[in-house]
Amino acid sequence: IEEQLQAMIKSNGNDTAASREAFRQSVINTLERRLFYIPSFKIYRGVAGLYDYGPPGCAVKANVLAFWRQHFVLEENMLEVDCPCVTPEIVLKASGHVEKFTDLMVKDEKTGTCYRADHLLKDFCKDKLEKDLSLSAEKAAELKHILAVLDDLSAEELGAKIKEYGITAPDTKNPLSDPYPFNLMFQTSIGPSGLSPGYMRPETAQGIFVNFKDLYYYNGNKLPFAAAQIGQAFRNEISPRQGLLRVREFTLAEIEHFVDPQDKSHPKFTDVAQLEFLMFPRELQVSGQSAQKMILGEAVGKGIVNNETLGYFIGRVYLFLTSLGIDKDRLRFRQHLANEMAHYAADCWDAEIECSYGWIECVGIADRSAYDLRAHTEKSGVALVAHEKFAEPKEVEKVVITPVKKELGLAFKGSQKMVVEALEAMDEKEAMEMKANLESKGEAEFYVCTLGKNVTITNKMVTITKEKKKEHQRVFTPSVIEPSFGIGRIIYCLYEHSFYTRPSKAGDEQLNVFCFPPLVAPIKCTVFPLVQNQQYEEVAKRIAKALTAAGISYKIDITAQLVSTLLWRYPSVEDMGGREGGTSIGKRYARTDELGVPFAITVDSTTSVTVRERDSKQQIRVNIDEVASVVKEVTDGQSTWADMLWKYPTHSSASADD
Amino acid sequence: IEEQLQAMIKSNGNDTAASREAFRQSVINTLERRLFYIPSFKIYRGVAGLYDYGPPGCAVKANVLAFWRQHFVLEENMLEVDCPCVTPEIVLKASGHVEKFTDLMVKDEKTGTCYRADHLLKDFCKDKLEKDLSLSAEKAAELKHILAVLDDLSAEELGAKIKEYGITAPDTKNPLSDPYPFNLMFQTSIGPSGLSPGYMRPETAQGIFVNFKDLYYYNGNKLPFAAAQIGQAFRNEISPRQGLLRVREFTLAEIEHFVDPQDKSHPKFTDVAQLEFLMFPRELQVSGQSAQKMILGEAVGKGIVNNETLGYFIGRVYLFLTSLGIDKDRLRFRQHLANEMAHYAADCWDAEIECSYGWIECVGIADRSAYDLRAHTEKSGVALVAHEKFAEPKEVEKVVITPVKKELGLAFKGSQKMVVEALEAMDEKEAMEMKANLESKGEAEFYVCTLGKNVTITNKMVTITKEKKKEHQRVFTPSVIEPSFGIGRIIYCLYEHSFYTRPSKAGDEQLNVFCFPPLVAPIKCTVFPLVQNQQYEEVAKRIAKALTAAGISYKIDITAQLVSTLLWRYPSVEDMGGREGGTSIGKRYARTDELGVPFAITVDSTTSVTVRERDSKQQIRVNIDEVASVVKEVTDGQSTWADMLWKYPTHSSASADD
Repeated sequence: IEEQLQAMIKSNGNDTAASREAFRQSVINTLERRLFYIPSFKIYRGVAGLYDYGPPGCAVKANVLAFWRQHFVLEENMLEVDCPCVTPEIVLKASGHVEKFTDLMVKDEKTGTCYRADHLLKDFCKDKLEKDLSLSAEKAAELKHILAVLDDLSAEELGAKIKEYGITAPDTKNPLSDPYPFNLMFQTSIGPSGLSPGYMRPETAQGIFVNFKDLYYYNGNKLPFAAAQIGQAFRNEISPRQGLLRVREFTLAEIEHFVDPQDKSHPKFTDVAQLEFLMFPRELQVSGQSAQKMILGEAVGKGIVNNETLGYFIGRVYLFLTSLGIDKDRLRFRQHLANEMAHYAADCWDAEIECSYGWIECVGIADRSAYDLRAHTEKSGVALVAHEKFAEPKEVEKVVITPVKKELGLAFKGSQKMVVEALEAMDEKEAMEMKANLESKGEAEFYVCTLGKNVTITNKMVTITKEKKKEHQRVFTPSVIEPSFGIGRIIYCLYEHSFYTRPSKAGDEQLNVFCFPPLVAPIKCTVFPLVQNQQYEEVAKRIAKALTAAGISYKIDITAQLVSTLLWRYPSVEDMGGREGGTSIGKRYARTDELGVPFAITVDSTTSVTVRERDSKQQIRVNIDEVASVVKEVTDGQSTWADMLWKYPTHSSASADD
Repeated sequence: IEEQLQAMIKSNGNDTAASREAFRQSVINTLERRLFYIPSFKIYRGVAGLYDYGPPGCAVKANVLAFWRQHFVLEENMLEVDCPCVTPEIVLKASGHVEKFTDLMVKDEKTGTCYRADHLLKDFCKDKLEKDLSLSAEKAAELKHILAVLDDLSAEELGAKIKEYGITAPDTKNPLSDPYPFNLMFQTSIGPSGLSPGYMRPETAQGIFVNFKDLYYYNGNKLPFAAAQIGQAFRNEISPRQGLLRVREFTLAEIEHFVDPQDKSHPKFTDVAQLEFLMFPRELQVSGQSAQKMILGEAVGKGIVNNETLGYFIGRVYLFLTSLGIDKDRLRFRQHLANEMAHYAADCWDAEIECSYGWIECVGIADRSAYDLRAHTEKSGVALVAHEKFAEPKEVEKVVITPVKKELGLAFKGSQKMVVEALEAMDEKEAMEMKANLESKGEAEFYVCTLGKNVTITNKMVTITKEKKKEHQRVFTPSVIEPSFGIGRIIYCLYEHSFYTRPSKAGDEQLNVFCFPPLVAPIKCTVFPLVQNQQYEEVAKRIAKALTAAGISYKIDITAQLVSTLLWRYPSVEDMGGREGGTSIGKRYARTDELGVPFAITVDSTTSVTVRERDSKQQIRVNIDEVASVVKEVTDGQSTWADMLWKYPTHSSASADD
């Protein structure tokens, strides 16, 4: 069954562009019809890039977040924090977002409509390559090259290409402005004065970094430790595409694991070292190969993954995603290419999930070195550092560089500050070389990068000595390893991976099924009285009570004529079927399959009921008093459905879906 | 014990203004020191009105929200939704927030510093009344009257009083501007064009209202049903005061219960009708009395509470708050006075909790009638209505008013539209009167309120007839009953109600305790190895594993010399004590009491351990293999601590806290 199911899912999702599009449409139609999500503010014609989670979507999201908390925060004893979305400008200046969190935009020069410059160039190249049959081999190669380097193009280069190819506004064919950077943060103003600019945070991470000092103290001034945060983040996209994947407001779940840069080993790495899954290291990408299955322990051992802690999180992310129901064959860990990675990053891997839109980055796992803590230390003047106390004081020899500011001021005037900073920033080797030169020649040539030129330093301008010091501790800025989860993207991919169709019994229509694992399913079981009568209603109530006590979410599906008490007591019962003769049990099963409900309890007697499993459609017969605990066992994962088939009599499955 | 505890809490919290202030300071100091919360962006000197939840605060919040979901969403089968914070202007124009969600502000005319006008006037009056000994009785009465009507003063009245009393800017004594309205929403811009204004939502309710149509369909087109949403809301306060109670970003949990306005009974009302608690109806407030204990069923029966559904939610809110640990004697339900309530509201009660700041509104429970759905129907043009199908079609006689636009246009030109609308809006009685006049005199005087005057209508301008129609259904706008929870305020009050101090064993210091119920406690138990050795460490690990499996959050507290493996495996262990000789068990208990951890497991042998209850400090001895399930039972509420004292041998408690 498991294999058949996988095959079905694949055949549903994995073919040509056209069939992928059709598959996506049927997933999205089902999701919208059953209110997994709703375009936000729909009655006002909506806002691009904003979506609501409706009741089942909300339940799926809550389940995913609860599991995330269990899998990461609780099992790893992380320190969870919860910071505001509104963030003052200074914090996002320090992090670099005010300056660099931009996309390049062009405007229709007549209507003012805005477009992402790279999207227009990309669409143009793709279109040409697909449709222009007269394209020369040389031209085709050029266009392909542009597609490959698109992310690296500067505003000038993009603008030049747009001009060269005569690209115009897609809707009006009007000329376009030159590309210019548009900051993707939603801007606002804090307080009434209008003098305190603020932004809606583009990520939750900064809230953790600015709290490092307190969290380090809370953790007993010890490394390593991890902090975590779940919350909304915002991105004012220029023109959102790709439906639920590219949105303007989304839930992030982020971990910042702080670690001594000299020791990135991880004591629990052995727990994940044997995992084997698709990895796509830099070398394979550059040489045009595809992702390969690798054993995580080997990837870390060979240095393909930079360090154990990064590897540990890759393994934990793999376990997290596959537990949710992400297909392991459509999940890969792709290493960032050198030009993709920030200059300070030590290594970076994305968990990419394949869906109808292609391979989508859903989790980023980056070793960001000491960059963030250093940036906030510099801007705030508060040292975000860790201490390692030595068991015994260590005697160390240290180079001490003392610039003589008066002399430097006379010599360099306005540039004095840059020269002083450059001198102080010399490492030991440079300083000792200069010292030798000053001693032998009385002066030394010195390159000041902030001035972009060499200057001459004389021995009056600086003293360089070596001094012995006793040190009692080492003070350092921790490295941070950051797994960052786009919860909405994971959930969307999960929908695609869980969706399949199968013919109805009569064969006249295709029925939709979401094969969510119980962990994720929005409702764990449905209760159906087979026919309407007072006795069955009483039984349904008893079962409902037992399910509530067991903490199992359920829904009662009744037919229209059932007396109103049940309707009242359970106001959210589902009754969308025929009002006249009641809905056939088969239709009711189909409705519940479409919500991904794993188990259905049908009340067909006053002593026992049947329990139907969604994907196999098999049924077992269970006593009324046992049924809640049976459902609890299989949804909690203590028992499997196979165990239950063994333990309880099966119910004639031929008639199950009638 | 329970009584002693209550007495202690009260004596801690309930005295003079000075002792209330001192009590609050010790609560806040403890909360900040143990990172229940952290002023946001502290290293950048913070932002007024923004706070982070640190690790224990975050856990408390997660527990409160999980219980809210259990108590309301699951038990009542509500439809939960999750909508974005970014909201386009049109939605908040419809709801009235763009126009009316304002506070009156004055500016220091020289420095531009902003103040809330009512705060300045309030401070002035209070100060005078407290400190000016020469105040005449007449003047004192005037100031008291101002304090009483402060919320109702217009900008002009406020400005006049500020001028009259010569109130200046508090910091500089500079003159102040006239008061003017400042909109409290954080404004932003959606998309890159700058042409789509948006706001950060001031409440979550609007996201539910705009989805009414889909949710009604999802519920099988049946009333009543409730939708719920938990999420961030924003309020750009002019000058936030009152610490954690008045913040610029906060978590709301809101329910919108949609109901037929002709039937606001509730089938489960009997479940709460016998509850008795402090209620403070309008009449008691107006006549200067205080809140009184009432039986909810009687309050609804006598019409003090408008209807059963409103009463049902008042009862459920009472159960929710007291289950969290809110002291029932410092909780009251206060009815809004007529002038406090929106004109459309049918009735409104606030759950107010008394803390060191006075009585604080923490939950608002309002019958908002059909206002919100009507407002969005009008603005969006989408009918947000419900249908009641009749079993048999009903024959009804209806007045049909048909304005003759051509004639009206000739007579009223530019005012035609207003006249037409006024004609169409006539009720049956008015229309029949006009019909009579038109028939007898050929014309009728008619007041058009949008024109503010009478016009003369002739019998050419309108036809009025009575027609018989068969109606198959009734179409109506549902009423909405809205319980709205300020989660942060509830949590802050809970901190105050749970805090008490008791002397250390040596009597030389006061130790802080948060007596959270297990439901709320950030961590359910701590595991202490009594002394450091390999065997106890193994036992602690075994217990930790069992606790994880049972889903109990715990913390291991070790002394400094414990071997590093444990530290590594459980990176978040707490070790803030002495590095040399280890921390005494008494100090470790005190640390855990201050976090409100209800149970502490001390490993003092390899076969059994002690379990200590926080408030009584009593201990029992339990076998190692049983301890996780014992803790689970008492934290889940299946058993009480008294049950456990009965079942297990008590451990000599004299030495417990040594």
